[in-house]
Amino acid sequence: MPLFTGVVPPVVTPLNADFTVDYASFTRVLENLIDAGVHGLFVLGSTSEVVFHDSETRQAIVEHAIKVTNGRVPVLVGTIDPTTDRVIKHSRIAKAAGAAAVVVTAPFYTRTNQAETADHFRYIKDAVDLPVIAYDIPVCVGLKLDRKTTVTLAKEGAIVGLKDSSGDDGNLRYVLADMQDDADFFGMTGSEIVVDSVLAMGAHGVVPGLANVDPHGYVKLWNLVQAGDLAGARAEQERLCRLFEIVWISTARTSAGSAGVGAFKTAMRQLGIIANNTMARPQRHLNDEETAKVDAVLKAVGLLG
Amino acid sequence: MPLFTGVVPPVVTPLNADFTVDYASFTRVLENLIDAGVHGLFVLGSTSEVVFHDSETRQAIVEHAIKVTNGRVPVLVGTIDPTTDRVIKHSRIAKAAGAAAVVVTAPFYTRTNQAETADHFRYIKDAVDLPVIAYDIPVCVGLKLDRKTTVTLAKEGAIVGLKDSSGDDGNLRYVLADMQDDADFFGMTGSEIVVDSVLAMGAHGVVPGLANVDPHGYVKLWNLVQAGDLAGARAEQERLCRLFEIVWISTARTSAGSAGVGAFKTAMRQLGIIANNTMARPQRHLNDEETAKVDAVLKAVGLLG
Amino acid sequence: MPLFTGVVPPVVTPLNADFTVDYASFTRVLENLIDAGVHGLFVLGSTSEVVFHDSETRQAIVEHAIKVTNGRVPVLVGTIDPTTDRVIKHSRIAKAAGAAAVVVTAPFYTRTNQAETADHFRYIKDAVDLPVIAYDIPVCVGLKLDRKTTVTLAKEGAIVGLKDSSGDDGNLRYVLADMQDDADFFGMTGSEIVVDSVLAMGAHGVVPGLANVDPHGYVKLWNLVQAGDLAGARAEQERLCRLFEIVWISTARTSAGSAGVGAFKTAMRQLGIIANNTMARPQRHLNDEETAKVDAVLKAVGLLG
Amino acid sequence: MPLFTGVVPPVVTPLNADFTVDYASFTRVLENLIDAGVHGLFVLGSTSEVVFHDSETRQAIVEHAIKVTNGRVPVLVGTIDPTTDRVIKHSRIAKAAGAAAVVVTAPFYTRTNQAETADHFRYIKDAVDLPVIAYDIPVCVGLKLDRKTTVTLAKEGAIVGLKDSSGDDGNLRYVLADMQDDADFFGMTGSEIVVDSVLAMGAHGVVPGLANVDPHGYVKLWNLVQAGDLAGARAEQERLCRLFEIVWISTARTSAGSAGVGAFKTAMRQLGIIANNTMARPQRHLNDEETAKVDAVLKAVGLLG
Repeated sequence: MPLFTGVVPPVVTPLNADFTVDYASFTRVLENLIDAGVHGLFVLGSTSEVVFHDSETRQAIVEHAIKVTNGRVPVLVGTIDPTTDRVIKHSRIAKAAGAAAVVVTAPFYTRTNQAETADHFRYIKDAVDLPVIAYDIPVCVGLKLDRKTTVTLAKEGAIVGLKDSSGDDGNLRYVLADMQDDADFFGMTGSEIVVDSVLAMGAHGVVPGLANVDPHGYVKLWNLVQAGDLAGARAEQERLCRLFEIVWISTARTSAGSAGVGAFKTAMRQLGIIANNTMARPQRHLNDEETAKVDAVLKAVGLLG
Repeated sequence: MPLFTGVVPPVVTPLNADFTVDYASFTRVLENLIDAGVHGLFVLGSTSEVVFHDSETRQAIVEHAIKVTNGRVPVLVGTIDPTTDRVIKHSRIAKAAGAAAVVVTAPFYTRTNQAETADHFRYIKDAVDLPVIAYDIPVCVGLKLDRKTTVTLAKEGAIVGLKDSSGDDGNLRYVLADMQDDADFFGMTGSEIVVDSVLAMGAHGVVPGLANVDPHGYVKLWNLVQAGDLAGARAEQERLCRLFEIVWISTARTSAGSAGVGAFKTAMRQLGIIANNTMARPQRHLNDEETAKVDAVLKAVGLLG
Repeated sequence: MPLFTGVVPPVVTPLNADFTVDYASFTRVLENLIDAGVHGLFVLGSTSEVVFHDSETRQAIVEHAIKVTNGRVPVLVGTIDPTTDRVIKHSRIAKAAGAAAVVVTAPFYTRTNQAETADHFRYIKDAVDLPVIAYDIPVCVGLKLDRKTTVTLAKEGAIVGLKDSSGDDGNLRYVLADMQDDADFFGMTGSEIVVDSVLAMGAHGVVPGLANVDPHGYVKLWNLVQAGDLAGARAEQERLCRLFEIVWISTARTSAGSAGVGAFKTAMRQLGIIANNTMARPQRHLNDEETAKVDAVLKAVGLLG
Repeated sequence: MPLFTGVVPPVVTPLNADFTVDYASFTRVLENLIDAGVHGLFVLGSTSEVVFHDSETRQAIVEHAIKVTNGRVPVLVGTIDPTTDRVIKHSRIAKAAGAAAVVVTAPFYTRTNQAETADHFRYIKDAVDLPVIAYDIPVCVGLKLDRKTTVTLAKEGAIVGLKDSSGDDGNLRYVLADMQDDADFFGMTGSEIVVDSVLAMGAHGVVPGLANVDPHGYVKLWNLVQAGDLAGARAEQERLCRLFEIVWISTARTSAGSAGVGAFKTAMRQLGIIANNTMARPQRHLNDEETAKVDAVLKAVGLLG
């Protein structure tokens, strides 16, 4: 059986106005997700603004998440930094804090190739006594994990699964086919908007940032697929697609990164889950005009009265 | 007058076989550069494998460089990491260690836009009591600093100069023109192979990784340009271009990053400057066959007997 | 009702060894597709090597296809060339020959933006008395049709449908949602490997190059989706995915373009449909060693005895 | 001796308001260039909007240019279209019309690789009895000619020279070095803004679109370099850089292509050389507000009273 399946949201890290972590809000974020029935939590992913936090803050975030979660669901921890030995260092801290697995990207800034990237995962696996999940996110690191790289690492046991945020669902399908005789391997999609499709192809889970705003929606979508109700899953996915439109509200003024996570934080604030929509520097948070547009979407999909 | 001018090599960080810093070799690297007459040192740049080193190791590298240099030339320190507050943290350590300036890239992994990147430099300038030099290296960070971004920051005083590793010499020329009434601003090129040209356009210096192998060549090139001997400068540049061919020797087997710095380290080992050509993980060092090709080039340009 | 739905393969153009069109083979290609029950034919698409053929040859190809088809299915004609007025000229010829619609890409070579590209479609619609289908293929033209561009053109009536070869299924889903109140609009996918998914999202058809090799497979897949048998559709899709692996057999030696269409032609020759696997210049055809690998795949999926 | 050297402008093709070629204006464009002392003319390049014109119009343009030029300078003809046999067809027409050479890009739309692109040039050379000049313009065709591809073709005699519009001056320098023992080979730059530099590196000429606006400037720059007055050349280049700023005036509203050639046409109209600033469809011409900004630049550099 795969180690992890289901809905495993990348958990937003709420910030105070002074850019420190708002732990009271963070507790509410975690409880809100667990209450909705998610199957795991992915702390310190891109949606968590992981690369904005230094090692000490990351440790505190992981420890807080694990304390609040208290074993109710597994906590996967992103140990994302440019290079191998720095990732190992983060991973050892995650292990000590009780992480169930580490989630690791290809190196970045470094112009590493596929062969070196494969070694990167091998070195980390050798150094850390935790399952390693490959995180394929070319838009951030500048390299797409080749099907062959992923499958080689999976067959060696260097990685136990894949989180695919590349948008290349055809490639994911081939990886799943190549690994179909390995009952332990899992592939999850990082998409928010084609989850019904990718699950219907045989993916084992989903890691949707938007679940921070509407965890019930993604849990419902998962359950419908498990029950074989693909028409129902499609209807729920389409509702979530309408909600996802919030990520483009501020793109004329902010980067895509600020626009996406910034919209999640803004919606979560409007829903009373977190106190501020502050974004880590130098990102920008959504302003009042943009917030009004978020509110309109939240109302349209039935999340706000 | 610009704060820094001339030949300011990005200093290679030699490693032991166990991936720790080889400080004895590092001392020789620094002395070799200073003896050749370079005008400054850029420690912890891309050529220094900066993103492979954690904060503690970076601090030790800077402290060693400053101790060895002992004021003979200014030491510029790269404080390169994905996001603003992490860069500020590195920069404060660099300041405490005695850095003359910090060298800062745009954020990376983050998909930051031009406006947010401008704020990144402003936040750093406000937080750190040191001159800030913008380091434009789109091949690593995925964003080219627009002419307007650079010039706006320079006119505000948020940056004192530019290290341009974008390869867009036309853009650098426009930046220099826009800043021509500001006698303090400087623009340097990160190129190894069109230095004569870019200096003839009015650039104030050069930051060539290849100077770790042949510092006398770049100092000679600089002096010829200062003396107005552009034909002589061109001849020296062309000799250095032949030497620079070592950076493509291993590209069929390694990434571009490993191939470039790996070739510098291999040449430096063959010249007796450093003990090993070890590269930080997961990069690959040049093998024996590739080393033989490096030797052939070193002989062809007169560096190896 | 949408003007076109179902399986509409882009038809391979077989060549003689001297690079002229092999019309006897072409007739067999067309008959093979129609016999299998496809719902339309797309002549002169990328799979047809359209940009390798001059205006006179294109006209002859279209006339031959329409004569052979003889009204049994509609014939859509690609009128693909870099710029507006050249596309209009091709489109008028297609109209005169009896095309049911023209299929048009964004301009290429030209660095045109979204607004100019929208005008491109408008000018063509105004000049040609035929339905216009937008063909989104950024890998060839260097520009992705924005959702907003596509939807604006569709609502104006400048285009009647979209052939999406961008690989961005999430974007296609949004276009379908935006157009859901317009019963005439259709969206088709150019994918060979996620057809079950994209049809399950509500797409109206598929334009798979691989159908030249196995038209029965795609017709079966379409029929299963129409019957609501998504599990059966998935199984057939997965068989077709195994067949699709032929497109990577020659990638170490040829371009991606030669590798894909070249593999289709080679398989078609091995199946007795066409006489040669010749590719238009300067592309390369698959060699004997590569052909043996194609044969092995054809056997594995049950197409070759 | 290289077949062509010096200033060889890509000649703007003026259009009437109905998008037909304005031959009266075209004559003035050609005379203006020849009067200024240019060393050759490049008709039907990107600046000529070549890909917007069909075969018949191209033939008429070439015939007109050759008639007007009447042997005073050589006329090079771009035969730019996506694929080999179409380029051959254009090239034979150019030969018949009296072209001195043809200028050929890599294939486009086609995703051709380096090896296939090399064959493309070989096939054209074999088929056409004219010197072939390689035109490296990755921004339009999506492929950069590798140094090795260019040098291999040059040493074989498949190409007699290179027009480099890639912006990679370091690569051009290596090509020039590789070919230094072949006195017939020439390399020209397509840059408008680093011409002094590239000539100082040993390039044999320049193909500046901006020369349509100020041919005397580029001829003066060339003559200063020939006379060894690099400081004078730099001053003239910097004046031309100020003029070149017109190409960014409309970029908020138009594509880069429309903005560049559109600005040249607008300036030429304001200087009385051509009648209209019409751009081929679907490009946009500069509007009145943008024209006022062009006028301001023309006055600032002394071209308009």
